[in-house]
Amino acid sequence: MTEPTADQPAAPQRPGLSRRRLFGALGAGTAGVLAAGTAGGVVGRATADGPAGGAHASGAAPTDAVPFHGEHQAGIVTPAQDRLHFVALDVTTDSREDLVALLQDWTAAARRMTAGQDAGEVGAVDGDRYAPPDDTGEAIGLPPSGLTLTVGFGPTLFTTADGRDRFGLAVRRPAPLVELPSFPGDQIDPAISGGDLCIQACANDPQVAVHAVRNLVRIGAGVVSVRWSQLGFGRTSSTSNGQATPRNLFGFKDGTANLKAENGSTLDRFVWVGDDDADWLRGGSYLVTRRIRMLIEPWDSSSLDEQQRTIGRTKGTGAPLGQRAEFDPVDFTTRVDGEFAIPETSHVFLAHPTNAGTAILRRGYSFVDGSDGLGRLDAGLFFIAFQRDPGTGFVQVQRNLRRDALNEYVRHTSSAVFACPPGVRDPADWWGRALLSG
Amino acid sequence: MTEPTADQPAAPQRPGLSRRRLFGALGAGTAGVLAAGTAGGVVGRATADGPAGGAHASGAAPTDAVPFHGEHQAGIVTPAQDRLHFVALDVTTDSREDLVALLQDWTAAARRMTAGQDAGEVGAVDGDRYAPPDDTGEAIGLPPSGLTLTVGFGPTLFTTADGRDRFGLAVRRPAPLVELPSFPGDQIDPAISGGDLCIQACANDPQVAVHAVRNLVRIGAGVVSVRWSQLGFGRTSSTSNGQATPRNLFGFKDGTANLKAENGSTLDRFVWVGDDDADWLRGGSYLVTRRIRMLIEPWDSSSLDEQQRTIGRTKGTGAPLGQRAEFDPVDFTTRVDGEFAIPETSHVFLAHPTNAGTAILRRGYSFVDGSDGLGRLDAGLFFIAFQRDPGTGFVQVQRNLRRDALNEYVRHTSSAVFACPPGVRDPADWWGRALLSG
Repeated sequence: MTEPTADQPAAPQRPGLSRRRLFGALGAGTAGVLAAGTAGGVVGRATADGPAGGAHASGAAPTDAVPFHGEHQAGIVTPAQDRLHFVALDVTTDSREDLVALLQDWTAAARRMTAGQDAGEVGAVDGDRYAPPDDTGEAIGLPPSGLTLTVGFGPTLFTTADGRDRFGLAVRRPAPLVELPSFPGDQIDPAISGGDLCIQACANDPQVAVHAVRNLVRIGAGVVSVRWSQLGFGRTSSTSNGQATPRNLFGFKDGTANLKAENGSTLDRFVWVGDDDADWLRGGSYLVTRRIRMLIEPWDSSSLDEQQRTIGRTKGTGAPLGQRAEFDPVDFTTRVDGEFAIPETSHVFLAHPTNAGTAILRRGYSFVDGSDGLGRLDAGLFFIAFQRDPGTGFVQVQRNLRRDALNEYVRHTSSAVFACPPGVRDPADWWGRALLSG
Repeated sequence: MTEPTADQPAAPQRPGLSRRRLFGALGAGTAGVLAAGTAGGVVGRATADGPAGGAHASGAAPTDAVPFHGEHQAGIVTPAQDRLHFVALDVTTDSREDLVALLQDWTAAARRMTAGQDAGEVGAVDGDRYAPPDDTGEAIGLPPSGLTLTVGFGPTLFTTADGRDRFGLAVRRPAPLVELPSFPGDQIDPAISGGDLCIQACANDPQVAVHAVRNLVRIGAGVVSVRWSQLGFGRTSSTSNGQATPRNLFGFKDGTANLKAENGSTLDRFVWVGDDDADWLRGGSYLVTRRIRMLIEPWDSSSLDEQQRTIGRTKGTGAPLGQRAEFDPVDFTTRVDGEFAIPETSHVFLAHPTNAGTAILRRGYSFVDGSDGLGRLDAGLFFIAFQRDPGTGFVQVQRNLRRDALNEYVRHTSSAVFACPPGVRDPADWWGRALLSG
């Protein structure tokens, strides 16, 4: 979970690994994107500087608003906020008209809430006392807190599992938007997987994220119902050069080598849908979620050496094994005591773009959902990745991880994929207009 | 859930309510504790000032450390932090020696972690690489974040449900430490109720709270196992005069009338165990937890008027119905259009100290645990109350609520009671020493 993205690649790749494509080499401290011979490629970090210390790039305060309108939806390359409430919903009507009205209503409410206003124009306080309030009220007085709301459309919105084309959208389904394949070791629970629609709410205050989801669900009553939802905290990836690398619940720095918001051309290549996909989705992105339970107790009783060899980094500094500092290049040829410092079964080795041949933008959060009735914490990583194509993004990365030593300590329990439309351009625009209007 | 504590009482109580004891009257703006004729009493707020705006009283920053040593355990009258991880554990051994060693080890680790250090002396980074780390690592580099760790002992530590006296403690069980009675409407799930021990971890960073619980659980391997746990966010009560009143998930201000940390004599009377209880518990307190699911969807579709009459306060300002401002006195005699402004079945009416005849210190948190498989958010209030005696504290308040209009919108799904020993006095002291040493 630590590495399925870009980093400074090694100098010459380890001999005998010809099954892995080497796309290029990049010296420490150099930035840029290398030419790639085939699908995927190696991406350099935009800068070689360490984290700037603050969690919020670009000088924005954690309480500030993030602009809602734009070419892309906010919440994808937005520097990751501290808290998550993710919800997947099923559409309970066959009325395309109701679906359109819902998306319009959601857009209006999202526009207001991301600016720190009530969900409805009248608001919680000043409404007709004999009608339900236009806002549920629990965020009154709280600042925008960096709230972003990001919407996605699941494969079942286009064609239901039993083959029905409820909204006349089957013909407009983008080819890459198909259910994810099974992977070895998957323990997916269908009840907390999939969904016709999703909303990712991120904010620096959980009350603000929860308030936003709850009000969108309220507005959707009679049109959608919640299928599953997940709360998260402690972002597990830095998505901007201004963000210090956080630690996941295995205690390791996570996201050192993630794609960064500042790396525009890389984002175009790996994150944003281009003109080789459905028209309505251009400027959007595909969202993959995986609820990855971490087996905390066996991990905590394993040795430091085992943990470090499983990840491929040192626990304290986050440095690649055999190196000194977090942002030192990952060098798969380094030997220590005659052995390769970074084991071939380590997560870093297998997930590294040099070896995975692709890059994705991770934006995951830790979760603790109580305990499991057997005395174990039900905790882990709610993995979120954005990519231009799930097939060459997450699916390719995950297939590479079949020999990952980390698999002994994790279980994937939920899975979903959504196509996130481009941004809402202006006050007249709404989520999904290009897909659903006309 | 908004009112089971102190407030400025009304002027003369409403006629015809003689079943309710009137303990006294206090003008707006006056502070103090009134004489009470019988058990319980009316408690004035320590000051009549509005909230000072900041969430953290006494000038402490949210990242600062809270002192671990003291007469009382931290985390009870400590100004409520923003995040909670609560865990209940069962002791899996019959060895008193192991239990003592665990409490000593926990105390040492808690002393370190509340100061912002690793759980173990060696720490996550510098330990023997062939041994499991002494700290799980996910809080490396994070500040103390106001972490408090508060331990409690459940009735089953003294005598198990099947009557065994595992640790020779049956004779030392304090008389008030008995399982809570059933209340009408309870939907308690035994699997997430009770427990031999509990740890309440509060901090301003969820990663810090989770890290602390996880390391204490790790240290307890082989002696205790997790029975259930609960995460919470967005404290639902202000426990200090410096804290603005937060809003619960019903959108109402909650905790306006809570006991405040600054009110020493009131705390002695209602929170701290005195010399009329078990010697080892003097300076401690009883902790009651109730997981109160809120029925979000019916609430959100009810009118503002219904919501306000259910609570007894206005949603916007938090003012008692018939008054103008949050801290205006709750006056049960005020009439509007010929009717009593605050209905007799409102939560404020029934939970108010004037009518409940007692006071408790609430310290609850909101929770959202995903959804329930039927399209409904599994959300609510994890209610926490501290009191000198559960019988004259929570049980008395809750019995008064049997006609509470709010009952239509809430379900209690978990219940527990614990005796929290007094504070750890110095570096040689440990949690429960007075109970278990000698």
